[in-house]
Amino acid sequence: MGKEKCIFCDREDFFRENQLAWMKYDKYPVSPGHSLIITKRHIESFFDTTPEERQAINELLEEAKKLLDQQYDPDGYNIGINCGEAAGQSIMHLHVHLIPRYWGDSDNPKGGVRGVVPGKRIY
Amino acid sequence: MGKEKCIFCDREDFFRENQLAWMKYDKYPVSPGHSLIITKRHIESFFDTTPEERQAINELLEEAKKLLDQQYDPDGYNIGINCGEAAGQSIMHLHVHLIPRYWGDSDNPKGGVRGVVPGKRIY
Repeated sequence: MGKEKCIFCDREDFFRENQLAWMKYDKYPVSPGHSLIITKRHIESFFDTTPEERQAINELLEEAKKLLDQQYDPDGYNIGINCGEAAGQSIMHLHVHLIPRYWGDSDNPKGGVRGVVPGKRIY
Repeated sequence: MGKEKCIFCDREDFFRENQLAWMKYDKYPVSPGHSLIITKRHIESFFDTTPEERQAINELLEEAKKLLDQQYDPDGYNIGINCGEAAGQSIMHLHVHLIPRYWGDSDNPKGGVRGVVPGKRIY
């Protein structure tokens, strides 16, 4: 996907930013407050980041958590990245999911990110 | 859970380490090569890490990817953290999942880490 057609290069609906990354709410939230941290540079994978970009992502993750704690008071969080289409990535511009979790949002939360392969979450 | 009973404080079966973190294969792998990056310090959450610990985790993530690329040649990766029991964390000592993904390991990989809440992965 060329940069000219990347919706994450538009920085649409951003609500926080720093020098190298920005943040928005996910358009198809898994749970209330589900947010995305996105690099300003168009790169596909977490493994393409510079140390400075990783630091910028981490700073926004911390900021987002504080904000979401205040606004939604969740019981936990998942942090997750899909690297590549085979891993479920659909927009090929790096984004980190921050997913607030609430008791009762699923029958059994056990396993969390193991759920990337359905049927392997519960072990 | 007290530190004396934490299985991730034992550093059992480690195969790589640096100053602040170490790495092992997951005992209940979601896919071949499923690895865990674990802080040496007993902390529960990613949000308890110091910048130095996050850097140590990232360095091991990069190292693990190179190793797994060579050994398993996967088609993608999920990186994920469960923060808190409501998010599926079962061992209350911070660990980052690095899950190699392979075409065909699930009917439809779309959504990836969205699968933390079953039924919300596909949107």
